[in-house]
Amino acid sequence: MLSEELQHTIDFKTKPLGALGHLEHLAHKIGMVQKTVSPKLSHPHMVVFAADHGIAASGVSAYPQEVTYQMVMNFLGGGAAINVFCRQNAIEIKIVDAGVNFDFSEGSELIDKKVRKSSRNILEEPAMTAEEYQKSLENGRSVVSEIAKTGCNIIGFGEMGIGNTSASSLMMSRLFDLPLISCVGRGTGLNDTQLQHKIQILSEAIEKYPDVKTTDEIAQTFGGLEMVQIMGAMEEAYRQNMLIMVDGFIASVAAAAVWKKNPQILDNYIFCHVSDENAHQKLLEILGQKALLNLNLRLGEGTGCALVYPLIQSAVNFLNEMSSFESAHITNKSS
Amino acid sequence: MLSEELQHTIDFKTKPLGALGHLEHLAHKIGMVQKTVSPKLSHPHMVVFAADHGIAASGVSAYPQEVTYQMVMNFLGGGAAINVFCRQNAIEIKIVDAGVNFDFSEGSELIDKKVRKSSRNILEEPAMTAEEYQKSLENGRSVVSEIAKTGCNIIGFGEMGIGNTSASSLMMSRLFDLPLISCVGRGTGLNDTQLQHKIQILSEAIEKYPDVKTTDEIAQTFGGLEMVQIMGAMEEAYRQNMLIMVDGFIASVAAAAVWKKNPQILDNYIFCHVSDENAHQKLLEILGQKALLNLNLRLGEGTGCALVYPLIQSAVNFLNEMSSFESAHITNKSS
Repeated sequence: MLSEELQHTIDFKTKPLGALGHLEHLAHKIGMVQKTVSPKLSHPHMVVFAADHGIAASGVSAYPQEVTYQMVMNFLGGGAAINVFCRQNAIEIKIVDAGVNFDFSEGSELIDKKVRKSSRNILEEPAMTAEEYQKSLENGRSVVSEIAKTGCNIIGFGEMGIGNTSASSLMMSRLFDLPLISCVGRGTGLNDTQLQHKIQILSEAIEKYPDVKTTDEIAQTFGGLEMVQIMGAMEEAYRQNMLIMVDGFIASVAAAAVWKKNPQILDNYIFCHVSDENAHQKLLEILGQKALLNLNLRLGEGTGCALVYPLIQSAVNFLNEMSSFESAHITNKSS
Repeated sequence: MLSEELQHTIDFKTKPLGALGHLEHLAHKIGMVQKTVSPKLSHPHMVVFAADHGIAASGVSAYPQEVTYQMVMNFLGGGAAINVFCRQNAIEIKIVDAGVNFDFSEGSELIDKKVRKSSRNILEEPAMTAEEYQKSLENGRSVVSEIAKTGCNIIGFGEMGIGNTSASSLMMSRLFDLPLISCVGRGTGLNDTQLQHKIQILSEAIEKYPDVKTTDEIAQTFGGLEMVQIMGAMEEAYRQNMLIMVDGFIASVAAAAVWKKNPQILDNYIFCHVSDENAHQKLLEILGQKALLNLNLRLGEGTGCALVYPLIQSAVNFLNEMSSFESAHITNKSS
């Protein structure tokens, strides 16, 4: 049995039993996904999906909507945090326009998967039509199926979209039947008054759709175009048997939505960090997961994944490269 | 003022205020140590000090004493966890014989700083004579002053020594006037009966020396030869203005002893992880420190430092490489 064989390999490395803690669980998980005691990480990728949110017009964010396209330009110019960390750790980065409210000039490296300019304002109508929702899932899948051709077997997903913690809070509340208030946080840095305003706007929004129940309906009604593309991208990454690095609150909500449709995908998820955004820890508990890092990050973009990647590599490396008690002629404990 | 200038540089990077969490504090700390807003990590080193402990004969560890020299051979052969992680992260590794109870053949890359074969059994006499203690400090200093010639400005210290959680518990208890029981843990993996035995042995040992009070007396009486060399090495690293990566419980006890003699050294310490060994979290609280990682590691060898090094590099990189709101033409929040 592979599971036992992996555990035996881990246990007989030259270290006390279990002394590499969480890295040992991670090594076991990766071996199980890749069906080998000698796993290998190949062509790691980070895909950042960007889109605007109709609800941003209601003042739910500390930043104006224009910051979405400005940050996309920053990603393309290599100056954002996610660029720095991907460069450091040799992770290939791709930027996808999933629905930014801006006309980008052609000829850049931006991957154009725009379904529409900004999601619709959920205070008035669902964020997407059924057709736009399906198109977003499909576009996300297509990005990953292209990347799979490089031999990539580990991928992370980031997001940029002013207003997307609002969409995430609404989705989380309805997906898990939780009081809205327990799912809302300060996003990019709201003060107390602004937070109260956000809660009020989101309460209005969620009360408008009492009959929205299924995962697909929830994502279509409350989600963001970038978040739904991430959902499609995660589905395809699972179909390709990739390891899927899950970033912070927004990416975790997308991951949780996909998990509700396909619980098996949990085998492939690596939860990279627990964010400072209020509801993220609770969401991880619902999924029964412990994240690798807790650095009070709350930036998104996939930064938690890019920062954690060397630790994932370390889990693979100790499994492949450490000597065993036997090979190193070391006395194991007797009991 | 450098501190304000650093904070301003961090705050105007293209991210919400504080969104890189603990990495921002780390970037600020590193800038302060290096006295620049553009710090740089050069020639990172890991030094693993190994020695045996007289008290190991009393059955306080899950492993026999011979494992110390066997693990040194494993370090020299490149097959231990610390080798794997240093190789991955391009950290130069040095192995020091600070007092292993074994005659190593010459011609290996082992650095010979042996003061004596094993510390003395503290159930009978202090672990070291005053002369052996001073010699150990001096030997640790000399290792680091050699390394400084490479241009190294960041260094971590690991340890190997069957019995050294016992020495560490005794030191911690006396250094901070804490009940022994709150400083003792399972080390490399004692079961309940073995843990009770360890506590009994250590209680006998500590009661034997009621008048041992100063930091130097405590380290000389209860410490290990490798731990005291780490103390000297940390002193010299501080003198050379290096960043000092602090590993798990044993290294943290050495760091705490040095701190008691020179509180300023805290500026240079980077606490890399909180170990699964019982008393480590408490020790970090006493020092008022939060560690970067919590992966339930309890291996020692410096593995926590080597694993965390890429995160330290990330803190430096975002400071140097991220664009600012101004340079990237991004709208900052108004309030």
